[in-house]
Amino acid sequence: MNSRKVGNQTVIYVNQPVILSSYSIVGPMEGKGPLGKTFDLVWTDSLNGEKSWELAESKMLQNAMQGALNKSGIPEAEIDYILTGDLLNQIMASNFAARALALPFIGLYGACSTMALGIAVGSMFLDGGFAQNILVGVSSHHDSAERQFRLPTEHGSQRAMSAQWTVTGAGSLVLAREGSGPRITAATIGRVLDYGGKDVNNMGAAMAPAVADTMVNHFQDLNRKPKDYDLIISGDLGTYGLALAHKVLRQSGVDIGREYTDCGTMIYNPDQDVHAGASGCACSAVVLAGDIIQRLKSGELKRVLLVGSGSLHSPTSALQGQSIPGIGHAVVIEA
Amino acid sequence: MNSRKVGNQTVIYVNQPVILSSYSIVGPMEGKGPLGKTFDLVWTDSLNGEKSWELAESKMLQNAMQGALNKSGIPEAEIDYILTGDLLNQIMASNFAARALALPFIGLYGACSTMALGIAVGSMFLDGGFAQNILVGVSSHHDSAERQFRLPTEHGSQRAMSAQWTVTGAGSLVLAREGSGPRITAATIGRVLDYGGKDVNNMGAAMAPAVADTMVNHFQDLNRKPKDYDLIISGDLGTYGLALAHKVLRQSGVDIGREYTDCGTMIYNPDQDVHAGASGCACSAVVLAGDIIQRLKSGELKRVLLVGSGSLHSPTSALQGQSIPGIGHAVVIEA
Repeated sequence: MNSRKVGNQTVIYVNQPVILSSYSIVGPMEGKGPLGKTFDLVWTDSLNGEKSWELAESKMLQNAMQGALNKSGIPEAEIDYILTGDLLNQIMASNFAARALALPFIGLYGACSTMALGIAVGSMFLDGGFAQNILVGVSSHHDSAERQFRLPTEHGSQRAMSAQWTVTGAGSLVLAREGSGPRITAATIGRVLDYGGKDVNNMGAAMAPAVADTMVNHFQDLNRKPKDYDLIISGDLGTYGLALAHKVLRQSGVDIGREYTDCGTMIYNPDQDVHAGASGCACSAVVLAGDIIQRLKSGELKRVLLVGSGSLHSPTSALQGQSIPGIGHAVVIEA
Repeated sequence: MNSRKVGNQTVIYVNQPVILSSYSIVGPMEGKGPLGKTFDLVWTDSLNGEKSWELAESKMLQNAMQGALNKSGIPEAEIDYILTGDLLNQIMASNFAARALALPFIGLYGACSTMALGIAVGSMFLDGGFAQNILVGVSSHHDSAERQFRLPTEHGSQRAMSAQWTVTGAGSLVLAREGSGPRITAATIGRVLDYGGKDVNNMGAAMAPAVADTMVNHFQDLNRKPKDYDLIISGDLGTYGLALAHKVLRQSGVDIGREYTDCGTMIYNPDQDVHAGASGCACSAVVLAGDIIQRLKSGELKRVLLVGSGSLHSPTSALQGQSIPGIGHAVVIEA
């Protein structure tokens, strides 16, 4: 078999996997934002009848995966693997959602980059002949993340202007070897980079260098330029991180312009008071599952580079004085 | 390309990846156990000069990966991906070890099944043509796990007789498309099973049904019997879990006998007072990286089925009254 590896970090898919279906669920606040109409389902209550935010997040992920499965028309028994991840300790939301589905399960941890990571890994399984159909899903929940990573949610503590708001949501895709839909054509797996930042209220800045690094390597590996894409979109850098990523890219000699934006800047209205924008595994997942895939299908977009961004710290590492490592995983999706 | 999927949960590797090298590091207690001489390095102090147990665990993982890399003779730049995971919240040990290596990084969460999961996934990348060389590594640390999952380590609380002792250790392998060494020939990805047990001091029992389920499916998918293996070994069921797995297998009609044992029963001497045996991501990883691979190389073992076992609960899920989901991932390793 010919090598599918190109350059240092990039793979190209020969049998390009297809996104057969996508499904997104969000919480009430996300439903009121500018992308509200692009989501499949908006929960009117972020607990939705569950006894805890963690269980609500897991149920949201389970429902999103079931939604993608139903839209795909693929019977559950024909899904070869579930690939999921989330931000909770021991990826609790994923483990319990996978328990409900009882399909072969691979747990991933890429923090907020997990949707892009899941697409990249799942596409390797499909192209390599190890699977016919794969279900990818991720979730995050503002209230479960807030109390795990920051302060008791009920505190309502004043937030820094550089802080982002964790998206309550879940996104899921069915990827397949056969069928029609947008195709996954390449992926660039990121390296962990750490510029020494320790401010857990400015995770966009912590992730921006890793996202820029992945982009630079992606363009080099494939001998492409930003202009070769209709849209380049990072996962959840938010306004501070997006500005910093632009700066790092310019310093790296990459001529990037209006074609590059960030999912974290798209989910909330300015009057929703979220400060630096959106974050969380669901941030890029629900923008992809809704807006981006809809624009790929309508013909508005032909080729998209999605760079999932992950902040790889833990509350323990932060309390122990460690700086924040970041990562970016990129996937190319074409109409 | 022909499908590499066989039956419901199993894949066979056509270009069988090779274990080029393995490296294991353990703490002082593991070094005094029956397998002490099979490990590459025994730390005489479980902090080893680091400021916290979490940082010590991360350094141990980093050193084990560097050790496997050095033994393989593969230059660091020729490693396509690092695949790692551990038990810490947000897989802190892995993220910080990956930061030190600065190679494309894929974070996994399979709890104590992560070494088997990493081998299965990495082998798909290699066989599929997406990589030439892959570094797999996992870690666990008794002291970091104890305070995260149970009680402050300094308490020295009395432990239940069904409780296991988390292995302080890290194991790493270099897997490659070319070279000589034991080969990875098949893998069975597990489903999440939950029999409703809620006793976090008896995780062996929580994992046993999932391990048995993966074995039953493995034998069915490949039309094999236990006798087709010289050794069948689960990851960290311990004495209680191993007895239960034997029982579930008998009830499933699988005639399994002395060829089946568990890594968790091999690491400590009876007089080391660990009650039900060993557990942790490192448990199966250091037994594999040392004892099993040495016996494969010596010709004593020809074909081994390693079934990594994972308990997919979190302290939060346990406190919220949820039962403990388990998983088993199996890989076949042949001389």
